Amino acid sequence: MNKQKTTVNQAGEFSLIDRLYKILLPQKNPDLLIGLGDDTAVIRMDKQKGMLATCDIQIENRHFRLDHTNAHQLGKRAAAVNLSDIASMGGLPKFALVSLGLPPHLTIDYYDELFLGMKEELGKHSAEIIGGNLARTEKELIIDIMLLGEVDLKNLLTRRGAAVDDRIFVTGNLGNASAGFTVLERYGKNYPPEFSELVQSHLLPQALVETGKAIASSGIATSMIDISDGIASDLYHICKTNRVGAEIYQDKVPYSKQVEAVARMAGKNPMDLVLHGGEDFQLLFTVDSKVSVARIDSLNRKLCEPVIEIGRILTDKAGFFLVDPNGTQKNLEPLGWDHFRPSKNSEQKE
Amino acid sequence: MNKQKTTVNQAGEFSLIDRLYKILLPQKNPDLLIGLGDDTAVIRMDKQKGMLATCDIQIENRHFRLDHTNAHQLGKRAAAVNLSDIASMGGLPKFALVSLGLPPHLTIDYYDELFLGMKEELGKHSAEIIGGNLARTEKELIIDIMLLGEVDLKNLLTRRGAAVDDRIFVTGNLGNASAGFTVLERYGKNYPPEFSELVQSHLLPQALVETGKAIASSGIATSMIDISDGIASDLYHICKTNRVGAEIYQDKVPYSKQVEAVARMAGKNPMDLVLHGGEDFQLLFTVDSKVSVARIDSLNRKLCEPVIEIGRILTDKAGFFLVDPNGTQKNLEPLGWDHFRPSKNSEQKE
Repeated sequence: MNKQKTTVNQAGEFSLIDRLYKILLPQKNPDLLIGLGDDTAVIRMDKQKGMLATCDIQIENRHFRLDHTNAHQLGKRAAAVNLSDIASMGGLPKFALVSLGLPPHLTIDYYDELFLGMKEELGKHSAEIIGGNLARTEKELIIDIMLLGEVDLKNLLTRRGAAVDDRIFVTGNLGNASAGFTVLERYGKNYPPEFSELVQSHLLPQALVETGKAIASSGIATSMIDISDGIASDLYHICKTNRVGAEIYQDKVPYSKQVEAVARMAGKNPMDLVLHGGEDFQLLFTVDSKVSVARIDSLNRKLCEPVIEIGRILTDKAGFFLVDPNGTQKNLEPLGWDHFRPSKNSEQKE
Repeated sequence: MNKQKTTVNQAGEFSLIDRLYKILLPQKNPDLLIGLGDDTAVIRMDKQKGMLATCDIQIENRHFRLDHTNAHQLGKRAAAVNLSDIASMGGLPKFALVSLGLPPHLTIDYYDELFLGMKEELGKHSAEIIGGNLARTEKELIIDIMLLGEVDLKNLLTRRGAAVDDRIFVTGNLGNASAGFTVLERYGKNYPPEFSELVQSHLLPQALVETGKAIASSGIATSMIDISDGIASDLYHICKTNRVGAEIYQDKVPYSKQVEAVARMAGKNPMDLVLHGGEDFQLLFTVDSKVSVARIDSLNRKLCEPVIEIGRILTDKAGFFLVDPNGTQKNLEPLGWDHFRPSKNSEQKE
């Protein structure tokens, strides 16, 4: 392949990110505590406080479809995706900047509802929109939110910190969002009512800001990430950052009967949705193996739902596995969402 | 016109921004010193320091054309546009987040050069990229940079502060960027060499960060804005914010002989380019009429180019004027860049 002519699509998201690191690293400002490569950047404000900064661009037909959702839901969703990044650092969201690319025929009612949705979702956490920028696109609606948050530096949790033998936890059921998307793809808006919770998980994900803060301030976690690309990919990010391996116990990974039903309907293995379906926005965190049961219980008493142990950190050499119910290790591939993976319509020409 | 069906294009940028204010104001966080409606938001860090936050989305064929520029220039330009907003507050840029929407066939070399250009332009001011997000678009290249900066609160300059009788200054020649764009439209890349400075002004604008800081710390200015939409529009923003009017003296407004030549070539009045051509990224600021000549001289000694007085703030009732060389006041229209104005190709159907 001629390097000169390699396209971003052929390169894929992970290779593009690696190129970026080569260009931009090392970072120089001593006030930058965490730069590229985590859910948010962290900037030192003073001895106690850090500012978190993250952004997430959402593009029509890549991240959302206008026939699946309305403007208000879409606004809430775009905010939640960013809020989740702040949650995964143990921080609190404060201020958002919003860049919108608007196709010419979008109505002003749609525009208003988009902002009302963002305002409502941010407002749940006392965050607000403080600036932004509007532009016109030819065809696609584009929503890019930059979110600033605040964190007590003593409670900051990042991707870095997981060590061999750490226990791996998640905050709740996985696969809901991608099962919900599957339902919408199959039925459109007239989906069977038993799947409505799944559809809601896809359309209106909830950022676990309070949960993230409780985990961070419990002091028991060694690293944390939000599950945006699918647990296999997001755990792989943790492993790569810390040069460790991991195993997940298949029969411990929590998912609902509805996810199983959708998988059956779609002719898929439920584990495909559960391990590789993105955008659940649950939190994944690791805990030192020496932490007592009492301390985990104490965290659980602060949460609405108890956290669930699903695996263990291994050495880098050991590998990256799913352990099936018979105890057999199978290689686990980080097959999560690649934003440059060709969509079905364009697969052939690319 | 049926309100339900009004499109964002029919509404236009200024009406969309007004709608936004109705939805999002008032703002609540007491640490938010300046929110919507200025070049950047300002967040209190401590008693002395504020954090500045701004974003600017640039969309292919709206803000730039790939046949006019290369990737490195485009990266530098996208950074400069944001740096200028920080400059207009008297601040220093620190950290950038970059969201890119990449069309599938863009090459990785193009992608690398885009980041190298951004890095270089930010690096001139010791700012760096600390995070971001990549996504795929169907067709258009999209660059959205969110820039964080820092300002001494005692030197902060905003759009608010201009008062009746204040003198109006600009930092240099106007109309260069839109003349440069006119040249590229006419000749493509093989333009006559005498226009190369104009073309550079369009392709590689320079953010006046040091100049902005010098003006702010001189203590003589009452308000400041960067000239991104054209001086008529940007001065109008100042007037609207402060509920005042203004007059600009036509024969004081600085522009080059090349701008005159381009205007002649294009069959335009040079004042069209000078007053309404955007993206010069000069700074416009107002000065209390009682400030001594000595203090303005003292500022000028700190700058490479002396600042130029071009007009005066009037009462709101008086109006918004251009004063021609005979001393006649003519109404001045804020005709600057509306990002929702239909482009030539689509004018008819919209």
